[in-house]
Amino acid sequence: MSLVVAVDAMGGDHGPSVVVPAAIGFVRRHPGVHLVLVGDEATVRGLLPADADALPLQVQHASQVVGMDEPPAKALRGKKDSSMRVAIDLVAAGRAQACVSAGNTGALMATARFVLHMLPGIERPAIVRALPTLRGETHVLDLGANTECSAEQLCEFAVMGAVLVEALGKQTNPNVGLLNIGSEATKGTDTVQRAAELIRATGLNFYGYVEGDDIYAGTTDVVVCDGFVGNVALKTSEGLARMIGQVMREEFTRTPLRRLGALLSRPALQALRKRLDPRAYNGASLLGLPAPVIKSHGGADVVGFTQAIAEAAAQARAKVPQRIGERLAEFLPQTLTA
Amino acid sequence: MSLVVAVDAMGGDHGPSVVVPAAIGFVRRHPGVHLVLVGDEATVRGLLPADADALPLQVQHASQVVGMDEPPAKALRGKKDSSMRVAIDLVAAGRAQACVSAGNTGALMATARFVLHMLPGIERPAIVRALPTLRGETHVLDLGANTECSAEQLCEFAVMGAVLVEALGKQTNPNVGLLNIGSEATKGTDTVQRAAELIRATGLNFYGYVEGDDIYAGTTDVVVCDGFVGNVALKTSEGLARMIGQVMREEFTRTPLRRLGALLSRPALQALRKRLDPRAYNGASLLGLPAPVIKSHGGADVVGFTQAIAEAAAQARAKVPQRIGERLAEFLPQTLTA
Repeated sequence: MSLVVAVDAMGGDHGPSVVVPAAIGFVRRHPGVHLVLVGDEATVRGLLPADADALPLQVQHASQVVGMDEPPAKALRGKKDSSMRVAIDLVAAGRAQACVSAGNTGALMATARFVLHMLPGIERPAIVRALPTLRGETHVLDLGANTECSAEQLCEFAVMGAVLVEALGKQTNPNVGLLNIGSEATKGTDTVQRAAELIRATGLNFYGYVEGDDIYAGTTDVVVCDGFVGNVALKTSEGLARMIGQVMREEFTRTPLRRLGALLSRPALQALRKRLDPRAYNGASLLGLPAPVIKSHGGADVVGFTQAIAEAAAQARAKVPQRIGERLAEFLPQTLTA
Repeated sequence: MSLVVAVDAMGGDHGPSVVVPAAIGFVRRHPGVHLVLVGDEATVRGLLPADADALPLQVQHASQVVGMDEPPAKALRGKKDSSMRVAIDLVAAGRAQACVSAGNTGALMATARFVLHMLPGIERPAIVRALPTLRGETHVLDLGANTECSAEQLCEFAVMGAVLVEALGKQTNPNVGLLNIGSEATKGTDTVQRAAELIRATGLNFYGYVEGDDIYAGTTDVVVCDGFVGNVALKTSEGLARMIGQVMREEFTRTPLRRLGALLSRPALQALRKRLDPRAYNGASLLGLPAPVIKSHGGADVVGFTQAIAEAAAQARAKVPQRIGERLAEFLPQTLTA
């Protein structure tokens, strides 16, 4: 049986104009995956190519759309026929094995949690994403779902992150760093210190404390932190990258001679952009749910959204949620019986 | 009377080999400032130029050096004749108006706090630094001195940061952002939400919540956060900048043609480096003390350390600590009577 991924066709800043072309491109290149495009049927069908009937694609009508700034509780109560909700319902009904949305993060989290329920022992999803590093990539969690975390939650993040990286075949026995503000054992908050003890007791490949600069140094395969810290680290990085890009554009175009230099440096500048392209890392995962739920960046273009679909398919194929459930049960029996 | 700055000549990764040349260059260019170089007299004198006697420079012997990894409590108890301690003692004795050290941050903080005492109502120093932004610069605090902060502390940071920026003449009525993980009023921790209320009540030019990407966008003149978050944001930035620099070097030197392009792009690349040069922003301040205490990056070179001396002199001249004391007394009477 082929894998089915439900795709919220209406979410994100660009909606179907990005999602539909991304979905078509994806199925053409990945024959084993079937996509269900959820959204306004007329709009979605209007964007399909002539040969759409021959593709592993299906359109599922949904009459509502969750606004990007809509309060999650309001979306959950009032929009039971939204493209986001219907996509998640398809997963709950077993008609899809994963779903992707570029819509409102809070609403996606609340809806997925309400419809799919969390894995036993997990309270709220953790948001994880791959980031490029000097050595390849690292996975950081939580990126903003849990603003205040207990030591137990940080330990759960460690388990979930390690299982994700291993299940996707990216690293065998990945090492896990706990984000702190110094590598000495006495540094950081009580919560972080207690989390270190808990993670050590799981038998994971625990590296110990890492600092902010270890993220992009690629010191560990997984970096664990609370959602406040993770969100600030991610957005600070986005801001710095934007500033550097802007300053580069200014300096490389300041004079005709510099523009000539930039022309000759084009292959280098393009390679640079490619290696650091955030689109190649698009698709954050909500971990702790019984099925892969992938959040694309709201502003993603076709290349970025395609990557988010690929992430959903890869996680479903690797049975990431099931493996996480098993490992949590093994490592954290106390959580399960709580 | 000329301004006197006490300089720990032994601190940092490079010690006197960086500090002494930086001090000499500084006094040659800034006639109104007198420096006291504190450290091993023979070593320091050995690095002085032939015309040193004609310069506003003085050497003060200190027989000990605090190690970069020495526990602060041990340094405080056991090294009463360290270059760091003697430099701070000079400030306490009124023989210098500010001090600078590239040594152990924890020891500098503990020693300054013990010898100079905090301003009334302040418990521990907050570390602040200027960072480059798309619009100029911003000052972020706390960068790591206070791992867990109360709403009251975050409010004190707001006052201290605003006074610093205004006193240094960088901005009139600077605006202050409170770092959070979303701009909506309901986002973030209870502490951050309560801090927003307190800051609003001070009458400062409060912008409201900012997110990580606002730091480098330059949205506000001051960004307030707890020391854990600030430290992670700063070090993550350092890591990302290092990664981008490394990837640029790799890509610009990959082929002979690319090396030619890089040669032609040299003016642009140099301008880029200059605009983002961390040395131009070297010198973090410990705020909340009765005198300017400046921490240079441990690895700073002569250019970077010179900037830290300049920061100390500028803060002493602008009477930043006195102004902070006055504003705290005005805004936070409850803190003073606590």
